[in-house]
Amino acid sequence: MRIITVSREFGSGGRELGKRVADILGFDYYDSEIISAIAQKSGLDPNFVETTLDNHGWQDFPVSFGGTMHSVAYMNASKIDLLVQQKKVIEGIAALGKDCVIIGRNADAILKDLHPFSIFVCADREAKIARCRARAREDEKLTDRELVRKMKEIDKARARTREFLTGSEWGHCQSYHLTVNTGEWDMKALAAAVAVFAQMWFETKA
Amino acid sequence: MRIITVSREFGSGGRELGKRVADILGFDYYDSEIISAIAQKSGLDPNFVETTLDNHGWQDFPVSFGGTMHSVAYMNASKIDLLVQQKKVIEGIAALGKDCVIIGRNADAILKDLHPFSIFVCADREAKIARCRARAREDEKLTDRELVRKMKEIDKARARTREFLTGSEWGHCQSYHLTVNTGEWDMKALAAAVAVFAQMWFETKA
Repeated sequence: MRIITVSREFGSGGRELGKRVADILGFDYYDSEIISAIAQKSGLDPNFVETTLDNHGWQDFPVSFGGTMHSVAYMNASKIDLLVQQKKVIEGIAALGKDCVIIGRNADAILKDLHPFSIFVCADREAKIARCRARAREDEKLTDRELVRKMKEIDKARARTREFLTGSEWGHCQSYHLTVNTGEWDMKALAAAVAVFAQMWFETKA
Repeated sequence: MRIITVSREFGSGGRELGKRVADILGFDYYDSEIISAIAQKSGLDPNFVETTLDNHGWQDFPVSFGGTMHSVAYMNASKIDLLVQQKKVIEGIAALGKDCVIIGRNADAILKDLHPFSIFVCADREAKIARCRARAREDEKLTDRELVRKMKEIDKARARTREFLTGSEWGHCQSYHLTVNTGEWDMKALAAAVAVFAQMWFETKA
């Protein structure tokens, strides 16, 4: 069984890249399917599950230390419960024994013993803004400044969750096998290149 | 003309990877040749040129600011002179108009207008220690702790020089097209995969 995991900066196109790579290689693809499975098992609203897991679930509390104000981050109980359920769903996917691409959710760390090929996807700020603009629903009327703040908040939550769960640094090159910058690529061509790269990786491990 | 630039963490094997990619693609390869050219033009000792450019040339001075001690970094004059000469040598290489791989020296930023394909090479600490041990000369008797300190110092100098010259962050995924972690790869197989990836990049730009 070959597993590819895709971690990504918000707005970098990691999800599209992962889908295209799965299509090229004929792998199964898991993304929002994971959220649906958790919602179904727990009886919770899928939007609540997604929002809590992906973007929020952290709260900062101010504390005084040595006469200076600092802030301490806490993860709320809903998020912890959902992370446990998410881990089980991801282990269940792996137990199917089929080649797959899994988007986000620290699947690379959860499935470490199965040696997934782990990819991190980034892009520079301007490319991410352009991408978000192109995909925005009609009702999203954020300014560039608000959009950048949203990106940073989501990436910060992802980083915190990863570091809490895995002890490895989110977005740091040493935490992944391959890191690609989508900024100057046509996504179709990039997916083809990543697919070949991943295949060559799996060949050396076969 | 196709240019591949390779930036790397000390001990990651970036140099070997770059050489192998150049051999596979039939590209010219520039590394210590750049140091030799500077030494020849300036009449300086090649070891002095290499040490000043690669590893040192920065000095920290303590300053008091708001009642707290900080340190400010200065680049010495020899290093600034040599960086100017290095830039000219790298521009001279590009002026030859031949496909090439250039190791380090911020060639990606210097040759930005020629759209090089830029790679960053990293590896985790243990892999880098093992690599340095395997390549160490008989007279190198550093402990692991000393070796890690040496790695960090060299990487810090590289980071500072890059940020000073280019304003882009050394080792950050957004600063390069592709970032590879050599840790779990056989270097020959990785070079083959990187060569294919780079070729696919150049095809989209042709």
